[in-house]
Amino acid sequence: MHMPLEDTLGRNLLAANQHRADHNREHFDAWKLLCLNVMSSPGAGKTSLLERTITALSPELAMAVLEGDMTTQLDADRLAAVGVPVVPITTGRACHLDAAMVSGGLTLLQQRLDPAALDLLWVENVGNLVCPAEFEVGEHLKVALLSVTEGDDKPLKYPVMFREADCVLITKIDLLPYVPVDVSRIEEHVRAVNPRAQVFRVSAGTGQGMGEWHRWLLATVREHAASQPPALVNA
Amino acid sequence: MHMPLEDTLGRNLLAANQHRADHNREHFDAWKLLCLNVMSSPGAGKTSLLERTITALSPELAMAVLEGDMTTQLDADRLAAVGVPVVPITTGRACHLDAAMVSGGLTLLQQRLDPAALDLLWVENVGNLVCPAEFEVGEHLKVALLSVTEGDDKPLKYPVMFREADCVLITKIDLLPYVPVDVSRIEEHVRAVNPRAQVFRVSAGTGQGMGEWHRWLLATVREHAASQPPALVNA
Repeated sequence: MHMPLEDTLGRNLLAANQHRADHNREHFDAWKLLCLNVMSSPGAGKTSLLERTITALSPELAMAVLEGDMTTQLDADRLAAVGVPVVPITTGRACHLDAAMVSGGLTLLQQRLDPAALDLLWVENVGNLVCPAEFEVGEHLKVALLSVTEGDDKPLKYPVMFREADCVLITKIDLLPYVPVDVSRIEEHVRAVNPRAQVFRVSAGTGQGMGEWHRWLLATVREHAASQPPALVNA
Repeated sequence: MHMPLEDTLGRNLLAANQHRADHNREHFDAWKLLCLNVMSSPGAGKTSLLERTITALSPELAMAVLEGDMTTQLDADRLAAVGVPVVPITTGRACHLDAAMVSGGLTLLQQRLDPAALDLLWVENVGNLVCPAEFEVGEHLKVALLSVTEGDDKPLKYPVMFREADCVLITKIDLLPYVPVDVSRIEEHVRAVNPRAQVFRVSAGTGQGMGEWHRWLLATVREHAASQPPALVNA
């Protein structure tokens, strides 16, 4: 449940969230940890993507997941099954993760491991193409997924999410032969609202395009770690 | 943009919305008009369903659409093209329609036609499986769509929407041969959270299952009109 935030109260709440998000990010930076906030409509394939990507990259990167869901631990269980530490965050009626929820998840994570030993922290947000885009959780990069089955107009109709995204994954491309959609038009519409986003076309089911995404991710994690000031290491 | 509504402020806002929604419903009842609130994730096929259903039923029913979108009139244009009066409601950053927005849409609709001449008013909500379920707009029935490409776990993960729905349309069943999902399990999960919902399996693309949905809809509109107290006609 939520209300429009266009008034003073709303601005104050967003500012408070931003303050906590910045605080979370200070921790991530102290731990030399890259944090990704993964967002999409329900069913665009966030969990399937993470299953495949975590499996592929776990020989090279130490990772953990904060798993946001309104209810159920179904996704948390799926990801724990691929052998990664997962902290479920149940949002109840809330339609997005906020910085305070992620801060609570971090506290639970720290009871299980030393975050400074991690390279990459995934935050899987609640399935929602609108609300999560407004609430930073302290992430370094926002990753938005868009399934080809959702049609080519979604970047234009839900511009806030796609404008904010650093990386857009066009998912389920194995279904392209069966849906009345042109993947170039999806990409064109993403670029119309956000020319700077990195865009990949992938299928977590067949593995198509996943190699390119994984190479970009590895390079990004390494660049990020290298760019952190040494003074902050293990701060 | 929005905030959690679990405090007193939130309850007051929801109560104010409910009051306006009830007022909208009094108008619908005076006009002997059935109002349906159509909700789903982005890309589950709300607009495609309405295109096909409105085309099929327009010889028998007088209809109009209030079309909610954050931005763009893409969907409103698609529906106007099938020959039905459409009032676009642009929500800006808001993630759902509320009763006040629908009341504003009704005022615009009344400038173009006499609502008492209509049998059925469609309200197409913003694509969002979470937030629209919390805000009544005065509808008589809630129709939730769930595409088979979204996976079978969504009724469990987003229970508020499916618990509230009077009718659930499992859409894009033409894609079943290509997705790793069992349609019986989707239906089982819908029934687990809501045993009373009417459930249909449809494809707006191929037309599969649409006849059954249309027959149910026609019967529902006629029953509703017959059940309205005569004293309220043209009130």
